[in-house]
Amino acid sequence: MDGADFRRLWDELANIGPADTGGYLRFSWSDADLACRDWFRAQAAARDLRLETDRNGNLYARWDASPPPGEPNDGRAVLTGSHFDSVPHGGAYDGPLGIVSAFLAVDRLRAEGAEPKRPIVVAAFTEEEGGRFGVPCLGSRLMAGVVDPERARRLTDPGGTTLAEAMRAAGADPDLLGPDPDRLAGTAAFVELHIEQGRHLDEEDAPVGVASAIWPHGRWRLDFTGEADHAGTTRLPDRRDPMLTFAFAVLAARKEARLAGGLATVGRVEAEPNATNAIAARVTAWLDARAPDEAVLDEILRGFESKVSERAGRDGTGFAIAPESETPIVEFDGALRDRIAALLGGAPVLPTGAGHDAGVLAAHVPTAMLFVRNPTGVSHAPRESATDEDCAAGVEALAAVLRDLAC
Amino acid sequence: MDGADFRRLWDELANIGPADTGGYLRFSWSDADLACRDWFRAQAAARDLRLETDRNGNLYARWDASPPPGEPNDGRAVLTGSHFDSVPHGGAYDGPLGIVSAFLAVDRLRAEGAEPKRPIVVAAFTEEEGGRFGVPCLGSRLMAGVVDPERARRLTDPGGTTLAEAMRAAGADPDLLGPDPDRLAGTAAFVELHIEQGRHLDEEDAPVGVASAIWPHGRWRLDFTGEADHAGTTRLPDRRDPMLTFAFAVLAARKEARLAGGLATVGRVEAEPNATNAIAARVTAWLDARAPDEAVLDEILRGFESKVSERAGRDGTGFAIAPESETPIVEFDGALRDRIAALLGGAPVLPTGAGHDAGVLAAHVPTAMLFVRNPTGVSHAPRESATDEDCAAGVEALAAVLRDLAC
Repeated sequence: MDGADFRRLWDELANIGPADTGGYLRFSWSDADLACRDWFRAQAAARDLRLETDRNGNLYARWDASPPPGEPNDGRAVLTGSHFDSVPHGGAYDGPLGIVSAFLAVDRLRAEGAEPKRPIVVAAFTEEEGGRFGVPCLGSRLMAGVVDPERARRLTDPGGTTLAEAMRAAGADPDLLGPDPDRLAGTAAFVELHIEQGRHLDEEDAPVGVASAIWPHGRWRLDFTGEADHAGTTRLPDRRDPMLTFAFAVLAARKEARLAGGLATVGRVEAEPNATNAIAARVTAWLDARAPDEAVLDEILRGFESKVSERAGRDGTGFAIAPESETPIVEFDGALRDRIAALLGGAPVLPTGAGHDAGVLAAHVPTAMLFVRNPTGVSHAPRESATDEDCAAGVEALAAVLRDLAC
Repeated sequence: MDGADFRRLWDELANIGPADTGGYLRFSWSDADLACRDWFRAQAAARDLRLETDRNGNLYARWDASPPPGEPNDGRAVLTGSHFDSVPHGGAYDGPLGIVSAFLAVDRLRAEGAEPKRPIVVAAFTEEEGGRFGVPCLGSRLMAGVVDPERARRLTDPGGTTLAEAMRAAGADPDLLGPDPDRLAGTAAFVELHIEQGRHLDEEDAPVGVASAIWPHGRWRLDFTGEADHAGTTRLPDRRDPMLTFAFAVLAARKEARLAGGLATVGRVEAEPNATNAIAARVTAWLDARAPDEAVLDEILRGFESKVSERAGRDGTGFAIAPESETPIVEFDGALRDRIAALLGGAPVLPTGAGHDAGVLAAHVPTAMLFVRNPTGVSHAPRESATDEDCAAGVEALAAVLRDLAC
C-alpha cells in the first residue's frame, strides 16, 4: 500500500459535492450524499461484501468471518468506518478518509490472504456533522437510543425540510428510525480512522496516532441586554450598550481558556436591531468551550461568568449564560488503546476536542480512534489536508489493527 | 397654550402605526404614513391653510401673508416642520412633534390676531429617517439636488419594493422626483422643532433649547478576516480568529471616543460562517463615529485604526476600514441662532450628533432648530419622552420665533 494506491480510490470521491471555495457540500440525504452512498454500494459489490442499511440510514459492508473449525468465537463483528457528510465547505478528509481507508484495509488484508475469524464491517454513519439537521452524530445517537426518533423525524434543515421528508425523498423510511441494541450487541469493537484536527502529529513527526479521549465540551448561549438608543446623540455615560459587554466576553473567554489550558471560542453572534446608527438593544452569542478534563472546563466557565458579570455591572447591561449542550469526557477503552499503540510501534496517544461517532459508540462497545497527520492542522475548512503517503500509512495501521482484532 | 392643549392634538396621531414594543412603525409611503398624510391634509383644511405637495412627496400647509400696504417684502416664506416617518420601533416624538407643534404655533399666532407679513408654511418632509429606503433625509436631499432622482427611484426597501413602486402604489408620481430650486429660493428661513436626543436640557433644567451645529459624522465599514477552523480542536496559538480583533475594535472605538470627547458605536455585526463550533473566517462590522469638530473626529479615527491594526497583527488577522459616508460639520446660521436664543430669554444653545432635514436645508437657507427636553435622553426607541408641559413650551417658543421672523 503506497500513496498512489490510496490516491486511486480517493480520487473517486473528489468530484462528489465540491464547492467553489475548495471545500465540500455533502449534507446528509442530499444528492451529493446519495452519490457517496452509491459509491459505497459499488465498493461493497466490487469486494463481494454484504451490504446492509440499518434502520437509521447507516450503511454497512460486511466481510463475513470464516472461523476455523474447533475455534468458534462469539460471532461479534469488528466495525470500522466513519461518515460521508461534511460541514458546509468542510475539507475532503473529515469523514470520508475513514471509509476509504476501511475499504483499502480490507484490500490489504485480502492481498495477504487473511481470513478473519470475526466479521469485519465497513460502516458509513449518517449526519455525523449535524451540518444539515443540527444534531451531530445523529445516525450513531439514534442507534444508541440517545436521540428520540420522533424528535429526529421533526428536525428541520435551514430550508424547512424535515429529516423525515429528506429521508423519504431519498427512498428511505423514517418510520424505522430508532435504537438498534442488537447491532451494538453484535459488535466486538469499533475503530474509527479520522484525519487529525490539529497539529500534534505534525509536531511529533508521526503519520498516525491513537486517541486517548474526547475532551469534555459544551455550548452555552450568551444573552447580553441593554437599551436601544441613537448612536449619534446618546452620551457615552448614558449608554447601556450590550455590544461592549459582548466584546469583553469574547476576549475574556479566550483569556480564561489560555490561563486554564483549554479552548474557548465565540464564532456565532447576532445583534438587534443590528443597525449602524443604533446602539444595540440585545446581542446574543454562543460560547464553545472544551478542556482536557471537567475540572479545567469548569474553571474556564466559572472565570468567564464571573468576569463577564462584573463587566456587565459596569456597562449597565444584562448578562445571562445558559447551557445548550454539555458532553462529559469520553475515555476510550484503555486496554484497546494501549494494545493498538503498542501494535503500531509506540504511536503517539493524543486527546481530541471534537465529537465523533466513536465517542457515542464508546459508551456501548470497546472503541478506538486512529488519527492521520494533518500538516495544516486546519479542520472543517478547505485547507484541511493529508499527504497520500500518510493516508497510506493510516491504511496500513488500520489493517494491522483489524488483523489483530479479527484475524 | 398649556399641556392639555398640546395633548388634544397630539393624541390624534397616537393610534397611527403603533407597534407592540411601545414604539412606532411609520415607514414612508406605508399605510401608517398615508394616514399621517391624511391627518396633515385635514389639519391644513381645518385651518384654511393652502395644501401643497412638492415633486418629492413633501407636504406643505401654507398660511399666505398679508403684507400691509406700503411695506412690501420679498414674499419669501418662513418654513417650519419636520417629518412623520420613524425608525423601526422608534418613539412617538422624533419627527411628528415638529409638525404638531407647527400647527399649534399657527393656532397660537392666530389666537392673538397676528397677521404675518411673510407666508408661514408648515412642512412634513418624507423619509427623513431612511428607515424604509436607507437614505436619510431623502425628501429634503432630493429637493436640494444632492440625491440623483434616478438612483432614488431604484432604492429598495427590505422587501424588495422600490421607492418608485411605493410612491405609485400611494398615488404619487415618482417621475417628478428631483431638485426644487424655486422652492428653496422662495424660503426666507427654516425652523425645525425636534425632541432633544440626549439629556442636556434635562440637566440644564430648561424645557427648550436652540441648536448650534450638527456634529461631523460618518459610517465606516470594518472588515476582519481570519481563517475558519474547528473550535474544538484548533489550539489557541494556531488560530487566526477575527472575532477577537473585532471584539478588541468594539472596545477600542469606545475608548478612543471617550478620550477624545466624541461618540463611537458599533451596533451592527455579521460573522461568517457564524457557527457555534467554528472559528469565524470573517467578521464585518460598521463603526458610527461623531465628534464636536472634524479634528476630534479625525483623532478618534486615527487612534482607532492604529490600535486595531496593531491588534490584528498580534491576532494574525486582516483588518480593513473603509468610509461608507462622511458628513462634515453643519453650523446653523449664527445670526438666526443668536436672535432666537435671545428671543427665548437665553435658552441653552447645544449641538447635536444627529442628522436632520434642517442640516440639509442649512446649506441653502438660513436654518435653525429648537429642541424640546427629553428626560430619558433616549432616542430612536420607545422610551423617548417629553412632558405635555414641555411640548406646550416648545409650541410657545416656536410661535415666538415665527412671530419674530414673519409677522
